Amino acid sequence: MIKTDILIIGAGPTGLFTVFEAGLLKLKCHLIDALPQPGGQCSEIYPKKPIYDIPGFPEILAGDLTKNLLEQGKQFQPGFTLGERAETIDKLEDGSFIVTTNKGTKHHAPVVAIAGGLGSFEPRKPLIENIAYYEDKGVDYFIKDPEIYRDKKVVISGGGDSALDWSIFLADVASEVTLIHRRIEFRGALDSVEKVQELKLLSKINLITPAEVTALHGNKKLDGLTVTKDSKKLLLETDYFIPLFGLSPKLGPIGNWGLEIEKNAIKVNTVDYQTNIPGIFAIGDVNTYEGKLKLILCGFHEATLMCQSAFKIVNPGKKHVLKYTTVSGINGFDGSRKEAPKAVVQAIN
Amino acid sequence: MIKTDILIIGAGPTGLFTVFEAGLLKLKCHLIDALPQPGGQCSEIYPKKPIYDIPGFPEILAGDLTKNLLEQGKQFQPGFTLGERAETIDKLEDGSFIVTTNKGTKHHAPVVAIAGGLGSFEPRKPLIENIAYYEDKGVDYFIKDPEIYRDKKVVISGGGDSALDWSIFLADVASEVTLIHRRIEFRGALDSVEKVQELKLLSKINLITPAEVTALHGNKKLDGLTVTKDSKKLLLETDYFIPLFGLSPKLGPIGNWGLEIEKNAIKVNTVDYQTNIPGIFAIGDVNTYEGKLKLILCGFHEATLMCQSAFKIVNPGKKHVLKYTTVSGINGFDGSRKEAPKAVVQAIN
Repeated sequence: MIKTDILIIGAGPTGLFTVFEAGLLKLKCHLIDALPQPGGQCSEIYPKKPIYDIPGFPEILAGDLTKNLLEQGKQFQPGFTLGERAETIDKLEDGSFIVTTNKGTKHHAPVVAIAGGLGSFEPRKPLIENIAYYEDKGVDYFIKDPEIYRDKKVVISGGGDSALDWSIFLADVASEVTLIHRRIEFRGALDSVEKVQELKLLSKINLITPAEVTALHGNKKLDGLTVTKDSKKLLLETDYFIPLFGLSPKLGPIGNWGLEIEKNAIKVNTVDYQTNIPGIFAIGDVNTYEGKLKLILCGFHEATLMCQSAFKIVNPGKKHVLKYTTVSGINGFDGSRKEAPKAVVQAIN
Repeated sequence: MIKTDILIIGAGPTGLFTVFEAGLLKLKCHLIDALPQPGGQCSEIYPKKPIYDIPGFPEILAGDLTKNLLEQGKQFQPGFTLGERAETIDKLEDGSFIVTTNKGTKHHAPVVAIAGGLGSFEPRKPLIENIAYYEDKGVDYFIKDPEIYRDKKVVISGGGDSALDWSIFLADVASEVTLIHRRIEFRGALDSVEKVQELKLLSKINLITPAEVTALHGNKKLDGLTVTKDSKKLLLETDYFIPLFGLSPKLGPIGNWGLEIEKNAIKVNTVDYQTNIPGIFAIGDVNTYEGKLKLILCGFHEATLMCQSAFKIVNPGKKHVLKYTTVSGINGFDGSRKEAPKAVVQAIN
């Protein structure tokens, strides 16, 4: 059982900034995310795209924003349960919660903050009859750890940035990379398309287009697949099949937690972004209230106000006085200390 | 008469970010600030101090945050009325407002956004009988343009960072810099104190401590002053006297605009941060509502939500659909265009 002060569901920018604001109040955070790495959409969908409306950044790449937010919260030592989806919630008699993931990991906290963005990102799966059987037995919809594929045969399917970029990356890792797409044209960043073209000419990527994977083979695990090209069938040996057809966000199991839902978002008040269930808050794109804008900068504000109420739940009866970081500095849970250079009082003669 | 869409009172971080968010909605902004430069407290009080709680910046100097926000809004070409204090407001029959400064500059806008921070910063003035007479005739409480002092004799009074830093700066500009302080000890950044010590030894700064300026002289303008040291009186010739005794924020004339005030702050709703007077909004540290935190990041959020309502006032009946900058890019009023690199659709053979 993982224990923490604030259990954050969703490790996107809002969830990550919560770690920092909670830390200023000496509250510890643990984050659950269905994606294999922190950052939410910013890392998974558009890490190389610029965002122009983060205050103070005329331009920042989504991936860099994630890095910065991780760095900003690091001293408060957040825990992570990644690659698992928050599935069920149980309220204990003392008002605290137990959240269990789809893989059975249990988390216990007095405060739950849902920072779930547009929902948990579910991969779009190809329509192959027995694909479910091979999930985690050779079929992966996300790449969690590229090292798994070292010196293995890998078939990637898809025509967008993920398929292009992972084909490029794994060309140096796997023993064989085959990229299959149902069209000849790919859609992605120009340099990615050009790089795949180059690797194809160097025979570092096998390209089969226009084609589709139509059957999977293997007994206990995947060992081959059928590719259909021009109504001809090819049999390919492979250790892994990675269909990268994009992700679609789904509110998912959270939708059954008894929270008031409106337009696929969780209703909250605007004082502390608490839901209809005391102790459960919803912040960032996942919530809704009058005037709501689904912008990252709004999630930052919501996270900050929420932490004030979380403090009161975790420390009943205790009073917190807002201190400015510029004036008071920051004491990390890791023993680190950040502070502005102090003024001296010194005679000049 | 200066005309604009949103007249922003206060050019601190919240006011500056409003320019950007308004610009995304094609609304033009003009800012009024009593200080001689944009940035509010961040520029005037603690430009060299680090802030740790701006989302995405593990650390940023207050002065750099100001620079970044100016850069972020630049393409939307904001206007500025600096060194003037918003004094009176008049509501016209069509619901728009005319705001007049203490120097008589008039501004006309359908929307007024008060982003006044802790109030307008009023200099603490030394208790010298006829000092008011010499204001703008040799006595300056702010340094607006250091070039005014080139090859002139300057007396600075004070014992903090402003007095130290301006003495250092003007040592290379003025023909003569005298620094007077009522104690021997100065309070400021170590390197500033050491630099003044060094310049004093090089005779580039005359230091008179412990001492006080007790009288000002001159007919039409300041030409000299009396310094009292150890109960002896010295007469000094000077062109300028610059007392830098700090600033204290005052809500000031805005307090008489008929706005609902609570604890020295302006009451607003939490839907669009509008005050009790339709068309007048209050954002950032100057406002109050249930759960309010006086943090820069909250001002950013408030500014953003406010702009949505400002759009409706400026464009009655027109509908605005939120677009993401990453997806749609930004069209500057100066003809500039920012956008994420576009995906290509290209065959790989």
